[in-house]
Amino acid sequence: MLSFDSVLSAIDTVGMVAFAISGALAAARQRMDVVGFVLIAVITGLGGGTLRDLLLGRLPLFWLRAPELLAIIAIAAVAVFVAAPRFRMGERLLVWADALGMALYAVLGAEIALLAGADPWAAMLLGVVTASFGGILRDVVCNEVPLLLTREIYLLAALAGAACFVSLRLTGVWRDHAVVAGMVVAFGIRAAAIRFGWSLPPYRER
Amino acid sequence: MLSFDSVLSAIDTVGMVAFAISGALAAARQRMDVVGFVLIAVITGLGGGTLRDLLLGRLPLFWLRAPELLAIIAIAAVAVFVAAPRFRMGERLLVWADALGMALYAVLGAEIALLAGADPWAAMLLGVVTASFGGILRDVVCNEVPLLLTREIYLLAALAGAACFVSLRLTGVWRDHAVVAGMVVAFGIRAAAIRFGWSLPPYRER
Amino acid sequence: MLSFDSVLSAIDTVGMVAFAISGALAAARQRMDVVGFVLIAVITGLGGGTLRDLLLGRLPLFWLRAPELLAIIAIAAVAVFVAAPRFRMGERLLVWADALGMALYAVLGAEIALLAGADPWAAMLLGVVTASFGGILRDVVCNEVPLLLTREIYLLAALAGAACFVSLRLTGVWRDHAVVAGMVVAFGIRAAAIRFGWSLPPYRER
Repeated sequence: MLSFDSVLSAIDTVGMVAFAISGALAAARQRMDVVGFVLIAVITGLGGGTLRDLLLGRLPLFWLRAPELLAIIAIAAVAVFVAAPRFRMGERLLVWADALGMALYAVLGAEIALLAGADPWAAMLLGVVTASFGGILRDVVCNEVPLLLTREIYLLAALAGAACFVSLRLTGVWRDHAVVAGMVVAFGIRAAAIRFGWSLPPYRER
Repeated sequence: MLSFDSVLSAIDTVGMVAFAISGALAAARQRMDVVGFVLIAVITGLGGGTLRDLLLGRLPLFWLRAPELLAIIAIAAVAVFVAAPRFRMGERLLVWADALGMALYAVLGAEIALLAGADPWAAMLLGVVTASFGGILRDVVCNEVPLLLTREIYLLAALAGAACFVSLRLTGVWRDHAVVAGMVVAFGIRAAAIRFGWSLPPYRER
Repeated sequence: MLSFDSVLSAIDTVGMVAFAISGALAAARQRMDVVGFVLIAVITGLGGGTLRDLLLGRLPLFWLRAPELLAIIAIAAVAVFVAAPRFRMGERLLVWADALGMALYAVLGAEIALLAGADPWAAMLLGVVTASFGGILRDVVCNEVPLLLTREIYLLAALAGAACFVSLRLTGVWRDHAVVAGMVVAFGIRAAAIRFGWSLPPYRER
């Protein structure tokens, strides 16, 4: 029987791979070699969860004893190096996989923070951090202004999902229901933004 | 009665808000949306203290259970987004608030490091890190060369204040006196640099 | 009698100074003042080991009670500020000192990770991180695309050295022998790359 947690775990892997591939595509823009591809993919795929766990003091880090995560990311990075043109054709797919990963990471980041004793506001912040820090690191290391910060409704979707999850949990809603609700909110907002080209008004001189 | 610690606490909040506003102004230069404003303000306002506590192993982090800090920073960021032109008129004020915050953070950063068992030299370094890391992170994320590092007497003022505090503490001076002396040194040097346009000689080819 | 560990310790210092000097030379390119030189040198010299220990939860950090490390780095940075033209003549020397430091850091980083209970793959990754993170931080703060990631066989050499060390340890080889073998592999690959101008093929549109 397919359990709820095994579905979450599958989404988790999909999201991590989507993050790793987006890192490898950034490495391609910088004309790195294959080792650079792997390192940027690792940074992007594991960055958010690593910062979250450092801030919460959750040691040892989850990937220190999970060689399969490193292997999956390395394989994804090498695959992009070898077959990037085809991946670019699949960029549309990537955006959706990334959105799914973002939705899950925002909710699970908030949950882990709550369990570690953070207050609700800090939990929402950690949800956003978990969902976005990998992508921010990727862009900072590749010397670009992080796209997450300047474009599209990404942080806002993560924040809304984390806020929804935290609110439901605090009002006593069952954990699995709150996870689904938070993910639906985050993914829904992000999906609408992708589909209809929504973006928040940027700051403008007045 | 106004206690010494409540004055320090007020200065702490003023400094954090000054850092947050400087982050929001950097977000304005990058034309981010309002969520980006808040994230950069959070990074700038909490970055220095967070790195200090991570390096010293002081967990849980101070802001995990202090929602009022996050709220103050978010309000400051939104206020800049809405009313930035007026804030730019107030940029002069900001420089002074930032100098006050820097002076306090340099001294308190050194104190916390001493209490955590760091040796005096590491304590001075952590004072400088606490006072400057938020601003460095802000500029790195916004893809600019950190101004702190290239211009004006900022790091030097923080270093002098932290060194003064550490020296006085090691020679047995009462804590509150050492705090005031360290802050006066850091703020005084920075204030003179702002007022008279002082800067250290940059590196020059010879 | 010259012990094996005292030789390693000397190489460690040489590597740290090489990293610090490369940081100061980057500060020179950005026309920083002398305090900026010292800060960039500290970041470059201590960054890799600091991240490694944060990820592994090895606190208190090694440099919190080792003022002599900070002093050596600060002296190196000031020396570059004062006498950079001569250091540039010595850039060839620097590349070799950096290669030696990289080889040692890759092996020791992997060893420390193994001792802290990381699995073999995570240990290799931490070897690479320890050898490269200082240089990556240096370039990120100075707003350049990290050269390590885009050019030359650097990460690959660190990875090969760490992998060699980890494999030998897991097959029961005596520690000192494995350290020497790992360093020879890492240094040898890097030296050949420097000497013969080897590089991996960068990603190319096809």
